[in-house]
Amino acid sequence: MKTSVGRYTWAIAEGYIPPASTGKSRELASHETVCILNASEQDARVEITVYFADREPVGPYVFDVEARRTRHLRFNDFEDPAPIPVNTDFSSVIVSTAPIVVQHTRLDSRQAELALLSTMAFAAD
Amino acid sequence: MKTSVGRYTWAIAEGYIPPASTGKSRELASHETVCILNASEQDARVEITVYFADREPVGPYVFDVEARRTRHLRFNDFEDPAPIPVNTDFSSVIVSTAPIVVQHTRLDSRQAELALLSTMAFAAD
Amino acid sequence: MKTSVGRYTWAIAEGYIPPASTGKSRELASHETVCILNASEQDARVEITVYFADREPVGPYVFDVEARRTRHLRFNDFEDPAPIPVNTDFSSVIVSTAPIVVQHTRLDSRQAELALLSTMAFAAD
Amino acid sequence: MKTSVGRYTWAIAEGYIPPASTGKSRELASHETVCILNASEQDARVEITVYFADREPVGPYVFDVEARRTRHLRFNDFEDPAPIPVNTDFSSVIVSTAPIVVQHTRLDSRQAELALLSTMAFAAD
Repeated sequence: MKTSVGRYTWAIAEGYIPPASTGKSRELASHETVCILNASEQDARVEITVYFADREPVGPYVFDVEARRTRHLRFNDFEDPAPIPVNTDFSSVIVSTAPIVVQHTRLDSRQAELALLSTMAFAAD
Repeated sequence: MKTSVGRYTWAIAEGYIPPASTGKSRELASHETVCILNASEQDARVEITVYFADREPVGPYVFDVEARRTRHLRFNDFEDPAPIPVNTDFSSVIVSTAPIVVQHTRLDSRQAELALLSTMAFAAD
Repeated sequence: MKTSVGRYTWAIAEGYIPPASTGKSRELASHETVCILNASEQDARVEITVYFADREPVGPYVFDVEARRTRHLRFNDFEDPAPIPVNTDFSSVIVSTAPIVVQHTRLDSRQAELALLSTMAFAAD
Repeated sequence: MKTSVGRYTWAIAEGYIPPASTGKSRELASHETVCILNASEQDARVEITVYFADREPVGPYVFDVEARRTRHLRFNDFEDPAPIPVNTDFSSVIVSTAPIVVQHTRLDSRQAELALLSTMAFAAD
């Protein structure tokens, strides 16, 4: 098994937190997620910068992803340095100190039946 | 943070504007979107050419994406040189003067409950 | 504008034609689609081979995609050398004589509200 | 036709088995799938390691994918060395002895109408 699967810099051009949910549980609330796999043998410090249409980027949002672990982070939960507004177009760039793999997923439950999208992020290095 | 994440030429083979919507707001109207992130330090001039099954390509559609900004453009809104017909298969090629990242997303609300798809575009250079 | 955006060999690991539809129109019938963009200046001859879980591959299915055109082909419509069975797992490899871009999309309307998925195919060369 | 389309190491950062289904058939039960195409002329031994947020990775789960065949494996069905818990974030790394192509698909039928997502996995070599 390789222990360093991944890249150091990723980007997601799409970003949007639906402003409403019909799902009442955390699982079924509308959410915008960045899934990070650190399959390497070293802990990763991950910095995410968020880009907007009409203002300067915000960040970095800093997260630790331990060696041999995954974290599925919701943009909805981002707080420091500032929450990400709902119903607003954004993009993100993810930079890591160890090789990671990044995937983007949205669950949209604005209507009674949920919708899903997912794509691998763009490996920029 | 790297300041030039991205590529100069991208392609999206799928393209389709649903001919109807149940959603009444702009957010929930059916739409076909190209999301562009310009994480570089220079403004980008972006030219999009649209390809069809049975006629010559149309374009370029020209957009400015400022440095450190994102724009989520709806094909539904394209007007110059010509609107894109609904219920018609198309593809697109996106060429930029600065490195960008491109992602394709559709929201389809022809029926009461919406459906979503998304994928990174193909980085052609 | 570059005139030869793309690659010559692509693969799609997922493949499945839903065995039923609630949509009555061709647009809303369940379908599995391979979208092909030929942005080059030469006509492309495209050969698609379909792989199954428990039998030898079938193909090639042969299609022409003219220069500067797109074709969104439904696996549902494939006939020669043999139709593709519904409700059956398959994969496909797409080989072209000119550079193309390939994207995979499914519309599933087995239930009253449709679901969508899409991803760029894997560029194998 | 090329006979060795693919790569040897793949990763999927997203992973989640919905904890419930409204669909009663196997086709419409919620499922998380890794689709593997072996378009090569040699049989592949595929080893999948599953990563979690808060514990050591589990695996390898070992599968054979014969030459010129596809297998669409459901994480729901994984048993040896251990079942994968539902409603739990995970990621996976897929290593093969022959070149393969890997795609990730989820069908979520927790609510009455299903939702779908799919993306090519990340080719790590």
